[in-house]
Amino acid sequence: MYGRYTQELGVYAREEAARIREDGRHRSPPLKLLEYEKGRCVRCRICAVHCQRFLMSRVGEDWIFLILLGLVMALVSFVMDFCIALLLQAQKWMSGGLDSNVILQYLAWVTYPVVLISFSAGFTHIVAPQAAGSGIPEMKTILRGVVLKEYLTLKTFVAKVVGLTCALGSGLPLGKEGPFVHIASLCAALLCKFMSFFGGIYENESRNTEMLAAACAVGVGCCFAAPIGGVLFSIEVTSTFFAVRNYWRGFFAATFSAFIFRVLAVWNRDEETITALFKTRFRLDFPFDLQELPAFAVIGIASGFGGALFVYLNRLIVQFMRKQKTINKFLMKKRLLYPALVTLLISTLSFPPGFGQFMAGQLTQKETLVSFFDNRTWTKQGMTEDFNYDSHSAAWKHPQANVFVILVIFIVMKFWMSALATTLPVPCGAFMPVFVIGAAFGRLVGESMAAWFPEGINTDGIIYPIVPGGYAVVGAAALSGAVTHTVSTAVIVFELTGQISHILPIMIAVILANAVAQSLQPSIYDSIIRIKKLPYLPELGWGHHEKYNIRVEDIMVRDVRYITLNSTYRDLHEILLIGNLKTVALVESAESMILLGSIERAQLQALLTQHLSRERRLEFIRDRADAERKRVSVVSTPSSEEGGQKVNHEVRFQISTEESSFTPARPISPKPLKPALKRTSTAEKNIEIPTSPHDSGIGLKNLLCARPQTDAMEEDPDAEDDMTLGEIEEWEEQQLDEQVNFNSCKIDPAPFQLVERTSLHKTHTIFSLLGLDHAYVTSIGRLIGVVSLRELRKAIEGSMTVKGVKVRPPLASFRDSGTSGTSSESEATELHKLWDRHTSISIPREHQPNTSDSDEKSQ
Amino acid sequence: MYGRYTQELGVYAREEAARIREDGRHRSPPLKLLEYEKGRCVRCRICAVHCQRFLMSRVGEDWIFLILLGLVMALVSFVMDFCIALLLQAQKWMSGGLDSNVILQYLAWVTYPVVLISFSAGFTHIVAPQAAGSGIPEMKTILRGVVLKEYLTLKTFVAKVVGLTCALGSGLPLGKEGPFVHIASLCAALLCKFMSFFGGIYENESRNTEMLAAACAVGVGCCFAAPIGGVLFSIEVTSTFFAVRNYWRGFFAATFSAFIFRVLAVWNRDEETITALFKTRFRLDFPFDLQELPAFAVIGIASGFGGALFVYLNRLIVQFMRKQKTINKFLMKKRLLYPALVTLLISTLSFPPGFGQFMAGQLTQKETLVSFFDNRTWTKQGMTEDFNYDSHSAAWKHPQANVFVILVIFIVMKFWMSALATTLPVPCGAFMPVFVIGAAFGRLVGESMAAWFPEGINTDGIIYPIVPGGYAVVGAAALSGAVTHTVSTAVIVFELTGQISHILPIMIAVILANAVAQSLQPSIYDSIIRIKKLPYLPELGWGHHEKYNIRVEDIMVRDVRYITLNSTYRDLHEILLIGNLKTVALVESAESMILLGSIERAQLQALLTQHLSRERRLEFIRDRADAERKRVSVVSTPSSEEGGQKVNHEVRFQISTEESSFTPARPISPKPLKPALKRTSTAEKNIEIPTSPHDSGIGLKNLLCARPQTDAMEEDPDAEDDMTLGEIEEWEEQQLDEQVNFNSCKIDPAPFQLVERTSLHKTHTIFSLLGLDHAYVTSIGRLIGVVSLRELRKAIEGSMTVKGVKVRPPLASFRDSGTSGTSSESEATELHKLWDRHTSISIPREHQPNTSDSDEKSQ
Repeated sequence: MYGRYTQELGVYAREEAARIREDGRHRSPPLKLLEYEKGRCVRCRICAVHCQRFLMSRVGEDWIFLILLGLVMALVSFVMDFCIALLLQAQKWMSGGLDSNVILQYLAWVTYPVVLISFSAGFTHIVAPQAAGSGIPEMKTILRGVVLKEYLTLKTFVAKVVGLTCALGSGLPLGKEGPFVHIASLCAALLCKFMSFFGGIYENESRNTEMLAAACAVGVGCCFAAPIGGVLFSIEVTSTFFAVRNYWRGFFAATFSAFIFRVLAVWNRDEETITALFKTRFRLDFPFDLQELPAFAVIGIASGFGGALFVYLNRLIVQFMRKQKTINKFLMKKRLLYPALVTLLISTLSFPPGFGQFMAGQLTQKETLVSFFDNRTWTKQGMTEDFNYDSHSAAWKHPQANVFVILVIFIVMKFWMSALATTLPVPCGAFMPVFVIGAAFGRLVGESMAAWFPEGINTDGIIYPIVPGGYAVVGAAALSGAVTHTVSTAVIVFELTGQISHILPIMIAVILANAVAQSLQPSIYDSIIRIKKLPYLPELGWGHHEKYNIRVEDIMVRDVRYITLNSTYRDLHEILLIGNLKTVALVESAESMILLGSIERAQLQALLTQHLSRERRLEFIRDRADAERKRVSVVSTPSSEEGGQKVNHEVRFQISTEESSFTPARPISPKPLKPALKRTSTAEKNIEIPTSPHDSGIGLKNLLCARPQTDAMEEDPDAEDDMTLGEIEEWEEQQLDEQVNFNSCKIDPAPFQLVERTSLHKTHTIFSLLGLDHAYVTSIGRLIGVVSLRELRKAIEGSMTVKGVKVRPPLASFRDSGTSGTSSESEATELHKLWDRHTSISIPREHQPNTSDSDEKSQ
Repeated sequence: MYGRYTQELGVYAREEAARIREDGRHRSPPLKLLEYEKGRCVRCRICAVHCQRFLMSRVGEDWIFLILLGLVMALVSFVMDFCIALLLQAQKWMSGGLDSNVILQYLAWVTYPVVLISFSAGFTHIVAPQAAGSGIPEMKTILRGVVLKEYLTLKTFVAKVVGLTCALGSGLPLGKEGPFVHIASLCAALLCKFMSFFGGIYENESRNTEMLAAACAVGVGCCFAAPIGGVLFSIEVTSTFFAVRNYWRGFFAATFSAFIFRVLAVWNRDEETITALFKTRFRLDFPFDLQELPAFAVIGIASGFGGALFVYLNRLIVQFMRKQKTINKFLMKKRLLYPALVTLLISTLSFPPGFGQFMAGQLTQKETLVSFFDNRTWTKQGMTEDFNYDSHSAAWKHPQANVFVILVIFIVMKFWMSALATTLPVPCGAFMPVFVIGAAFGRLVGESMAAWFPEGINTDGIIYPIVPGGYAVVGAAALSGAVTHTVSTAVIVFELTGQISHILPIMIAVILANAVAQSLQPSIYDSIIRIKKLPYLPELGWGHHEKYNIRVEDIMVRDVRYITLNSTYRDLHEILLIGNLKTVALVESAESMILLGSIERAQLQALLTQHLSRERRLEFIRDRADAERKRVSVVSTPSSEEGGQKVNHEVRFQISTEESSFTPARPISPKPLKPALKRTSTAEKNIEIPTSPHDSGIGLKNLLCARPQTDAMEEDPDAEDDMTLGEIEEWEEQQLDEQVNFNSCKIDPAPFQLVERTSLHKTHTIFSLLGLDHAYVTSIGRLIGVVSLRELRKAIEGSMTVKGVKVRPPLASFRDSGTSGTSSESEATELHKLWDRHTSISIPREHQPNTSDSDEKSQ
């Protein structure tokens, strides 16, 4: 759980470095010198330098970045679509060419997707396993401020693009929208890295987050050619709080990307001009009757239940696979077997001459959608006549079966197939399959309505027949909205179909579907987040009234690890051995408990390592030798203090050189603040080994076992390490009893503080707003507890799942049943204590560092 | 400047009260008792109680509230539209009936709007002056957390509705969209108050803010029947950070409202079914050619400049009116003269038989828009033939003038007229007039294109003529987007016209227009905020790179007012006399400067008033008398301490009774926490009087002059106030030297803290996220400065207007030029100080409370 907050300390150094570097670069081309030179090309060179300088200054601007991002993503999307279309065509061509022999045809039909999916799964697994799946859950987590570094690398990009192309080319019910959000974010992250060769601002972390948010919009935008829907959808699925100042970024990049994506289609002669992807041709004058609205509402509510069921089914499959240990073991060994088996099953069932003829198995997703959105009615206007010229809709015509039966079979089969297919370890999304199922359901309702009211619903004499295509559009928006818990699928549908005339039915259905689905299940993305156990803060849910009554004091951990200003190095060492906290609170003293700041664990380790370092020991030896020599001569001064000073100076010097040495180098990955930090990275791992936290001797050795290797590089030729191991241990023991000198340590002087009476609702808001990892709970300056993401998540999930029983430790009930004056009284006593302490009647507080059960402790 | 943060303290008491009340209510119907009763109606009564209980529990849910809100707003919108249409028809009928005499006709044409506007201005001024204008700037400020109470009252609602109806009925170029946002918010606020009779949660402040945000969406949504556009537009114009969890609220309410609004039209037989307000009929197959895109881009860029010019012109007119003192004086006297004169001027110019014939003066806004969005071309396809059956487009046909000339005149005249009309003190918005001008400009470009390419731009043989109506749509979206700095006007346009086929041209034009306009001028709403000097934090703007380099230490006020734990009441008194801060920092001591919390000014005043109250004085008299009596007898004990204790107990008792007395009462307006607070409200006003801050004697009198009236009500019959004025003064002087007892004082124990090195960018983010009013700057627990909205605003505006020159006080430049180790060194010294202090070598810090120039002071 690496919160952004813990990175805060590194930001300053990097910003500073970036600024210095930028300043340096602006000065770097020696223009004046050039002008004094002679020769022909001087002017050219001056001009070139000017141009370069101009470009450099421009290259840092957001819009250049966004245009580049949009361009790249449009190209990627177009090329990928092209490849997928080729792959799908190849399958059709193969099975079409072999129609003389059904068995051969079946083998070709089945082998092709099995090979593709297996390749996709294998490639993804070898190159970058984190590329599997949708990517939206991970992006949601990253945008919340949690650093998942490996999710934004070039390897992942390659794996995702290749894997997705193969997976979609197989013809399984998978989507490209979720992975595209991830691909766009990868693209933005890589572009940021690339651009940081030119400008310093790309180093800035908050800027990168803004760009990632824009990239998510680009991902959806260029996948559906839906800029507005893309922006809204990406906001809904990835953000908790959205900065309106980023709004234009998303719109700009997504529009540009969608534009290029569609222009490429025009240039490629696929289209005459820029229009929607799934253009519909519903009538404009009278899109629907008011009396049809109940039918749309029914679609919405049913989609809500369907969406919740889909999420549940998806989770159930994953959990079943995990729990069955024998299956699990077998699958872990043969990683490609599971995808291959699933693909085999799905392909077999959708084999067109086989069962596939009852579920339009020969159609691709795109063709299916086009046939659903058709504005002609299948049932009434005669199946045979109209369908001759439209090969897509012909798939729904079957000599033996009714169109309703085929639609029902299609919906049921695709439903579980999609839920199963999205669990495969290949890059794939669930949006498009769900969209298709929704459209099928809508079409089913629409056709039923058309069969029920063949003359249309009566209005004032003029006959307006019912358009089942409109129902399909409504169903698609509603079901995809229900699965993803978003309202913006409505906008995506408008942009996909190029018609907005059904706006009210769509909005009504989507809202109803959301209302139903949100009260039953989490969204598919939140469900995956829970399955993958990503460090994310769940939403508060709809009816969060009770959240106003839970307070921080009910959920906080009261047993906070802290160090004081007069802690010894031994205390430090103990703190480091116990627990695995990222930061440690620094208080004034154990009596006052006044919170002064927080220190990162790594910083403390650095302090400790540095204090017990070979250098200091050598210095000690040298000092001892000096003292010995001086004792022989006349003057004798105690040099231990001086030595300490010397070390401090050295450390400070090290810091400054580190910072100035940033100038020539280009730190692509965030660098640690101090050299000492780097040295402890091995020590940090070793510290997990000791099982008993009280066995400090072993811990100490482990902590410092990295010493010999690292110190071997240091040159210190004039001193010899002639201490024995026993002497070293003695020296170290002695050093551990010294008071910690915090001078060379980075302290976060204002960690986030809450009051004990802050409500859970507000705490949640603040945590999600600021992307916090933990916050200290203080009472008039005194540290009384700490709340981290974990506690908050527990509290929210506790009060969400068990609705009646709230998370109320003894204290909370005490607060309810007690006299109404309790709270202000306790506050008064709290202050009174402080006041008393201040007037120098210091009450010695009992110090219990090892009490594990925090709930048992009362005030 | 009443920040939300300063209200935090009141929230707890109110929440608690609401909870207790709710608990009480649930228990209230004595069901058990009823069942023991006999008689016929017992069952009925039990059933009724059950029903009531169920309704009560449901009524608290959000969706009930949102449906009610949507319903009410749809009705308001529909009725208002109906009235406006009637008023406009009346004007036409009047001037149409008098067409025999031009002078009479002119008089009728001009008098009617003058009377309406004057009535509107007068009514607004008398009933609620804050109802004038758009209301969006105020809503933006309110949603940021600033409390502008008078903007959300019933009076304002009435004034706004009536005023707006009259203003729009006059036919001036005014819009209803801005005011509708305000009306919807008013409606929500009133509904909240109303609903609080049923459920306790409506008391919750953060919930109310969420509802206000939804209400803004409803306002736009039911004004244009554009739910999606409404939600997005309201987010863009009112929010800085948007909570995605509120998203569905806006969509739900706006959709419902738009639905009802359109259903009312169907029921009223205005429409056959639910369609768009300004339905267009552009062709779907080939909406536009790729080669037309440059023309759309030109519209976008020109609209950007036009939008900036509009905002500038609007501000210029307001500022001109303010600066011209003679005009100003005159207008202040005759408040209705300015609206009347402006109306006279505009009406005269648009008089159809006069100059109005060159600018289609007879058309209403709606008719104008319909004619602009027409899908036929005016220039090529013969003006005379087609125009016979369409009366609206006929207005653009003039025997003497070209259609281009008329369009240009229309644009120019309407431009300044709209800018002028929106400065009138009536409820009015600028969106619709600007929208019309944009449509006119787009139509102009479209007609020019159609004249230039009469055969359409060539594509593969098929002739697709150019559709000027599409250009009009693009222009309308672009100009309104430029003026309001929003992208969502694009969505509003789709929903208004019911067609989305021009999505790419519209998006491109809107984004370009925004890019140009945002780099030139603030949005119209921000401009009004600045003119009205509302307490709002400006945006950072597009290119905010330099914001990363300005730090809090450069802009903070170093001279912080504070009190310490051992301050005397005299210090308190002095602090209260100096400055007008809302809160005062509480530090441990002047030497340590460790921040413990902040106290509200009102709390301190209460402390002081209570300490010098008549009660305490009477007690003192009583004690003195007792002591006298006891001295006469044997035992003598010093009773002053005991008296102090007594007072404390009394105060604590007061608090508890206050809280429990909340139970029966229903506090509609937020109540002060303690009775003492109420008593100081008059004193608070009086404290502004003393001019010299050092004249504490006068200040003290002023502060306490409210004493006699308020204390007259207290009953204390057994003691007599027999002290002379001199004695009182002496007693007060003596009391002032006592140490402050903070026990009965509400302290905010965790005021928001920043570090000195926090960047301006981050500070801005945190301030807007949390709606802060001020934040303390601390360094390892020590208070070193304070930043308030004012400093932040200054810094942002300073670095925005003068782009090259950054806000860099001496310290900042020092930081740049200094050695790279400076920062960590200074931090080390900072900590060192603390450390030294801790190891009890207390260095007496020079205490300079009256240094006014904070920039001169260095570390």
